[in-house]
Amino acid sequence: MQIILLSIVLLLTTSAFAQSAGQVSRIKTDVLAVMDAQTAAWNRGDVNEFMRGYWNSNELVFVSGDGVTRGWQTTLDRYKKNYSSREKMGELKFSEVEIDVISKNAAVVLGSWSLTRVSDNPKGKFTLIFRKFNDGWRIVHDHTS
Amino acid sequence: MQIILLSIVLLLTTSAFAQSAGQVSRIKTDVLAVMDAQTAAWNRGDVNEFMRGYWNSNELVFVSGDGVTRGWQTTLDRYKKNYSSREKMGELKFSEVEIDVISKNAAVVLGSWSLTRVSDNPKGKFTLIFRKFNDGWRIVHDHTS
Repeated sequence: MQIILLSIVLLLTTSAFAQSAGQVSRIKTDVLAVMDAQTAAWNRGDVNEFMRGYWNSNELVFVSGDGVTRGWQTTLDRYKKNYSSREKMGELKFSEVEIDVISKNAAVVLGSWSLTRVSDNPKGKFTLIFRKFNDGWRIVHDHTS
Repeated sequence: MQIILLSIVLLLTTSAFAQSAGQVSRIKTDVLAVMDAQTAAWNRGDVNEFMRGYWNSNELVFVSGDGVTRGWQTTLDRYKKNYSSREKMGELKFSEVEIDVISKNAAVVLGSWSLTRVSDNPKGKFTLIFRKFNDGWRIVHDHTS
């Protein structure tokens, strides 16, 4: 009985406080898949689908040069206002992506974004906080500069 | 024995996957204390002490308008270069601080910063990722804009 108890305790503490290399690798793959789906959606002009990468909640936080936008719908509206045509959307690319898995349900992503457009090539850095929900990993906090 | 086992399992899962209101409150207090110590240090011109709020590691990430700074020492050097006098440091104030506790060892902080200086009043937003270490809560990732 003591061995079973110890096994359960070890199992729980291991799964809760540390992730195996396999778990970390799996989380990184899942997070990257969300980001890849976002760029694919953006680059076919589908802002609604791009927004599926974000937590569909009024508590979503989006921070950028012009301040804090709160909530999924408000963030969608902001994107649609700022990128009202395929020309303004351009071709989105994420690069230099680094994922820091901080628990089995949370990860921090640092990366660079760029838009290739006819007239310019805006770019910058982003910090994303991903949380795992029942329907997968979603961005709950985005700080873009 | 089953009751003891169940109690241990419940104790572990509760502490690992959810925080009680008391635990969350304690974490927020601890994180705010670090930030208060930072502003107090800054406002007496002590950049080294201000930097105690940051993880003393080469893996520290500091993102700002001018790109990504990596490592505690490099971040300290950047602060000392950009704020080379008490006049340039001004009076630092954090406001609109919101703390999102994401595990017993991690928290995300959204807030506003401002510097009151003789000639200007720069301000902006920050996203901080705090992790808990043996010596307390420290910023591991700072995105300031």
